[in-house]
Amino acid sequence: MSRYEKGKEVLEGIQDRSVEEIFKDLDDIAPDLSRFVVEFPYSEIYTRKEVDLKTRELCTVAALTVLGTVPQLKDHINAALNVGNSPVEVVEIIMQMCAYAGFPKAINGVVAAKEVFDERGLLQSGD
Amino acid sequence: MSRYEKGKEVLEGIQDRSVEEIFKDLDDIAPDLSRFVVEFPYSEIYTRKEVDLKTRELCTVAALTVLGTVPQLKDHINAALNVGNSPVEVVEIIMQMCAYAGFPKAINGVVAAKEVFDERGLLQSGD
Amino acid sequence: MSRYEKGKEVLEGIQDRSVEEIFKDLDDIAPDLSRFVVEFPYSEIYTRKEVDLKTRELCTVAALTVLGTVPQLKDHINAALNVGNSPVEVVEIIMQMCAYAGFPKAINGVVAAKEVFDERGLLQSGD
Amino acid sequence: MSRYEKGKEVLEGIQDRSVEEIFKDLDDIAPDLSRFVVEFPYSEIYTRKEVDLKTRELCTVAALTVLGTVPQLKDHINAALNVGNSPVEVVEIIMQMCAYAGFPKAINGVVAAKEVFDERGLLQSGD
Amino acid sequence: MSRYEKGKEVLEGIQDRSVEEIFKDLDDIAPDLSRFVVEFPYSEIYTRKEVDLKTRELCTVAALTVLGTVPQLKDHINAALNVGNSPVEVVEIIMQMCAYAGFPKAINGVVAAKEVFDERGLLQSGD
Amino acid sequence: MSRYEKGKEVLEGIQDRSVEEIFKDLDDIAPDLSRFVVEFPYSEIYTRKEVDLKTRELCTVAALTVLGTVPQLKDHINAALNVGNSPVEVVEIIMQMCAYAGFPKAINGVVAAKEVFDERGLLQSGD
Repeated sequence: MSRYEKGKEVLEGIQDRSVEEIFKDLDDIAPDLSRFVVEFPYSEIYTRKEVDLKTRELCTVAALTVLGTVPQLKDHINAALNVGNSPVEVVEIIMQMCAYAGFPKAINGVVAAKEVFDERGLLQSGD
Repeated sequence: MSRYEKGKEVLEGIQDRSVEEIFKDLDDIAPDLSRFVVEFPYSEIYTRKEVDLKTRELCTVAALTVLGTVPQLKDHINAALNVGNSPVEVVEIIMQMCAYAGFPKAINGVVAAKEVFDERGLLQSGD
Repeated sequence: MSRYEKGKEVLEGIQDRSVEEIFKDLDDIAPDLSRFVVEFPYSEIYTRKEVDLKTRELCTVAALTVLGTVPQLKDHINAALNVGNSPVEVVEIIMQMCAYAGFPKAINGVVAAKEVFDERGLLQSGD
Repeated sequence: MSRYEKGKEVLEGIQDRSVEEIFKDLDDIAPDLSRFVVEFPYSEIYTRKEVDLKTRELCTVAALTVLGTVPQLKDHINAALNVGNSPVEVVEIIMQMCAYAGFPKAINGVVAAKEVFDERGLLQSGD
Repeated sequence: MSRYEKGKEVLEGIQDRSVEEIFKDLDDIAPDLSRFVVEFPYSEIYTRKEVDLKTRELCTVAALTVLGTVPQLKDHINAALNVGNSPVEVVEIIMQMCAYAGFPKAINGVVAAKEVFDERGLLQSGD
Repeated sequence: MSRYEKGKEVLEGIQDRSVEEIFKDLDDIAPDLSRFVVEFPYSEIYTRKEVDLKTRELCTVAALTVLGTVPQLKDHINAALNVGNSPVEVVEIIMQMCAYAGFPKAINGVVAAKEVFDERGLLQSGD
């Protein structure tokens, strides 16, 4: 299996979407950037056995909360849920970031989580 | 038990040092900042049961690698090892950050880990 | 008075809104994060007498301009005005940040201030 | 020619818009900030002969991709094209930033470029 | 008085050092950068009457604590003291930043303050 | 030629050092991170023809000045000189960053450049 095929399988498994859907904004002007994402982090990092996917995705949620890059944070909140984290665990780690990156980043991270949970139908009855 | 006593117990357990040692640089000019660290994150966040300490500390290592604050990163690499992460797991998560915060932050994080491992005698014979 | 009650009084006084309104986005998925904001910075930092509220809020506006977290910047521009800073003082400190964090952050901060001033009816007739 | 007149000429040349248009959001509440932008970077930095405008603007695109300040990034993507960079060169440098600031910043930079290219009619028929 | 002379007077007054001393690291390779600092922020921002120097310098200390640029933070802690802030006020604002930029930045800011206070002989008897 | 061999050739050519020397700090605890640097940015980005190496390295210097990661900034100042930029061009781009990331980052970048120039014997007679 090529690096691309291996990364595509991992990425599509984690995100539960096709790579065409994931990269629809990039593919007409920077297709190689999409390819790099598939071939490098998904083919070569997320496939390593040293840490399981559930923990990897929580750590990525922590990192993206600190960075404040909302579109990617939402993608990885979805991914974190897809690989076995509960909504409570995801929110907990975002909250924890208030100690390291301040309350604004933690609050904005929780707002992003709420949007994802809402899209997944996880906020019901009276929310 | 007061908030301070509870946080002190958790922090000293995680860091395997006394709070006096941990905050020796702060206590003569900002003792209340040390107290805040004990009473807020350690008493009120790290005591929560939603996520275990092993995972919390890995997420904190991820966050501090992204932030690039070396003294705190080294403290939490120590903490991550103390609560049950292996050196391999710690390095793996720091490496993973290259995809989210770039290679410079990941490389500087690994250099910090190497210093911690060396201080703990984990780099031996021919390393 | 409990830590929560004390922080609530301070926060509602500064923001001139109820905590329910302030945290309406967080309360269904991360109510403890709202509680932390009330109990820690508002109950334990903003109540300290070492620096007055007017100066504290200007410093927070400076910090949030640098961080670029717009929702919180807008909240604290409102707060800065509520505790006695003039619109001119607020804009002046945001402008000053161009020297420390570059023009983009200063410009985006001024745009946030303009939105707040507009919501408060401070931009009138020919402005 | 005054510092302002010199900077205005350079800025309007690079941006292909009048200063009134460029600073329409700032001029009613922070006109001096607009003036600083004209008189300092455009009059005193972009006029220097040590590096040509084409290279300067690519370096600014790199910096703003890292900073993630989208409105200014879009302005300078436009500027980079106006002073002689091709769309391919601009996208290439934004992509390169994935190695230094991570994939999220690079992806958000490419999305900004796509918006600019679209506004300029550079994404056509089947792109 | 030229812009340079005006800025030099303000900067030397605030820092209580000559510009030659302040910029000794820059003058052989980037003398124009030193000149920009004198002519732009010190001549054109710090001279404005909208906010007094005491408040300006506290806001700058807040910003530099968030940015984590230690040499400049130490310069401005000195400046903040020189223009009338007490050591307690300076430490208080640095501590306040824990809520906005996290504990690591606040702790590193306090450590920088301690070094400055020590150099000024403000940490005595038993410290 | 394998991805590794291609990246090694490019990296060693740009840095004028062997990969063993470049990664001596990483190789005993994170050899795969070194390999990723060789195989991804050097094999797959710096080899692309869309932008020449001279411009790529200046853009990287801009990015690293903004990020403030000094060890990597120094490596890329060296690289920028090795691929044909003059010391004046490198300093000019670092200075330009004062407008986008503030004076502290620009000043710290120039100090890094001075250290590199000194190591290369470029600061002579009276410096």
